[in-house]
Amino acid sequence: MESLMEEFDTPDVEKLDKRAMEKAKERLNRLAKPENSLGKLEDICEKMAGIQSSEPSLQGKKIFVLAADHGVVEEGISAYPGAFTGKMVRNFLEGGAAINSLAEKSGAKLEIVDVGVRADFEHEGLRDRKIRRGTRNFLETEAMTSSEAIEAIEVGIELVENFGKEADVIGLGEMGIGNTTSSAAIICSILDEEPEEIVGSGTGLDKEGVERKTEVVRKALERHDPEGPIKTLEKVGGYEIAGLTGLIIGAAANKKIVVVDGYITAAAALLALEIEPLSLGYMVFSHRSDEQGFEKILEVLDSDPLLDLDMKLGEGTGSALAMNVVESAVKVYQEMEEIENL
Amino acid sequence: MESLMEEFDTPDVEKLDKRAMEKAKERLNRLAKPENSLGKLEDICEKMAGIQSSEPSLQGKKIFVLAADHGVVEEGISAYPGAFTGKMVRNFLEGGAAINSLAEKSGAKLEIVDVGVRADFEHEGLRDRKIRRGTRNFLETEAMTSSEAIEAIEVGIELVENFGKEADVIGLGEMGIGNTTSSAAIICSILDEEPEEIVGSGTGLDKEGVERKTEVVRKALERHDPEGPIKTLEKVGGYEIAGLTGLIIGAAANKKIVVVDGYITAAAALLALEIEPLSLGYMVFSHRSDEQGFEKILEVLDSDPLLDLDMKLGEGTGSALAMNVVESAVKVYQEMEEIENL
Repeated sequence: MESLMEEFDTPDVEKLDKRAMEKAKERLNRLAKPENSLGKLEDICEKMAGIQSSEPSLQGKKIFVLAADHGVVEEGISAYPGAFTGKMVRNFLEGGAAINSLAEKSGAKLEIVDVGVRADFEHEGLRDRKIRRGTRNFLETEAMTSSEAIEAIEVGIELVENFGKEADVIGLGEMGIGNTTSSAAIICSILDEEPEEIVGSGTGLDKEGVERKTEVVRKALERHDPEGPIKTLEKVGGYEIAGLTGLIIGAAANKKIVVVDGYITAAAALLALEIEPLSLGYMVFSHRSDEQGFEKILEVLDSDPLLDLDMKLGEGTGSALAMNVVESAVKVYQEMEEIENL
Repeated sequence: MESLMEEFDTPDVEKLDKRAMEKAKERLNRLAKPENSLGKLEDICEKMAGIQSSEPSLQGKKIFVLAADHGVVEEGISAYPGAFTGKMVRNFLEGGAAINSLAEKSGAKLEIVDVGVRADFEHEGLRDRKIRRGTRNFLETEAMTSSEAIEAIEVGIELVENFGKEADVIGLGEMGIGNTTSSAAIICSILDEEPEEIVGSGTGLDKEGVERKTEVVRKALERHDPEGPIKTLEKVGGYEIAGLTGLIIGAAANKKIVVVDGYITAAAALLALEIEPLSLGYMVFSHRSDEQGFEKILEVLDSDPLLDLDMKLGEGTGSALAMNVVESAVKVYQEMEEIENL
């Protein structure tokens, strides 16, 4: 493992530029409004100034939806059959999913990426980065190899390099039947929490289903309690989650603000922080996901989402909605009159 | 008073159309997503179906910003001098305020209405509905006459009739130095709460200022504890708050969804409910205002806002941001593929 980690070279992430943040706050305090009365909109402007080392500006918006299948679906931990991952990817490509409408509304370009779906696609809109046709069942064996975990992270970094450069804000999205189970195992492992506190109903499991899912996560962690982000991905991860981890690091390295969606992308955020703690400064949490365990993540990361919509759909739907808030914050910063000019 | 109330004829508000709501929920349940996974977006679609007696649709968006001055400002209850009301109205008209940027971002048309500002304006963009140059100081006498209260409510109703017809969603906004004090007195009176629980720092009062403001509200309510919405407005109200009360009733009567902004518009919502309880079905709360006492209102109305931005600016800034969520909900409803077609 150590030798692998040595080979695994992630791009440098810089600290936020404090001077630019202070200057942004100074302007915010001069605007025609009581100090701090725009709340989190002001925090976003400061953060973007720190990221961009200048006054905040926002041009391009992009949402990456990474999709992959999960071997652990065999254990009956989802209300949907695994084949739905592929069906939903097709739906994304054809424009019929919630994320299509919401991304369009927010003016964000969508990138649909296959990182490990069992199905095959022939569609020019798809970015094919398939690593394997789904992970292995992590109750029986490792979900993936360490090199696959690293490869998937590198896919995320490469996606930013190739398709994220023109965006100032990058939204995270995902699709993968079974991925709340993988995410729960990752979250439990990193936060050292009990599965009962973290495992939720996902796409709509009943009480018995949640108990079964909790048991699967417990057994997986008993079987192999991983340490470190690569080992965690190897033991209980998913290709899309690894890819999202790379996306976060790549976005931070490229000085983009990253909008975290819900439960699964938050698991990726935890992994990204294990690899690169400075990436936290680049993140904004979009919405208070309704999935159990999400509050715990927010608490640990001391993060407070922008929206409170009782949503738990994933796909990047929260990211798309929150992008409007991010863009609104920047627009207000750029356009508002200063109080002394009234 | 009774004779006045008899003369005071508000337009009829109908119950939401349950059949249309059920039909909307049926479609929501057929969409390519787990049931209820779009949370409050689904609630909005159901509500709009109930309001519109059809499948939800959203074309026009309008935000009304009602402005007025408050005699009680003499008591030193605001961090800003009363003259700021007029200055900010000019700023709205010139496009330099937060609400200008946010309304533009949300695609909503702004109507700036003078219901009782001390200053005079010569600007073709302004709707002049001035009732009086500010209320009287309600610590010394009644804030307004009963007929003025009714006139201001009727202004709100008329504004919807004349300028709100083409909108499917109407956002509430306000400007009036001192109006959190008036709102606090209204809220305390209607909810039978103690000023300590309801009075907040408004535009940025320090601890002593909040104590003084609390004392002003306490004394005003001791002096005349009003009963009924018109008496409450007469004793401790504001012209813009009365106007907003009328806007809510007018919007409900015209079958428009109403986006409530923050603390002041929530006080107007309480008044509207006293006059017409059915208007609650037409409201959606935009954001969790950071002003003390706001949580209490949400609790009483059993309402849960869409955004959680620590904002406390007013002007309709929360309404503008939340309109994007309302429009997104309708767009998703209209465009998403049904699950059986995947």
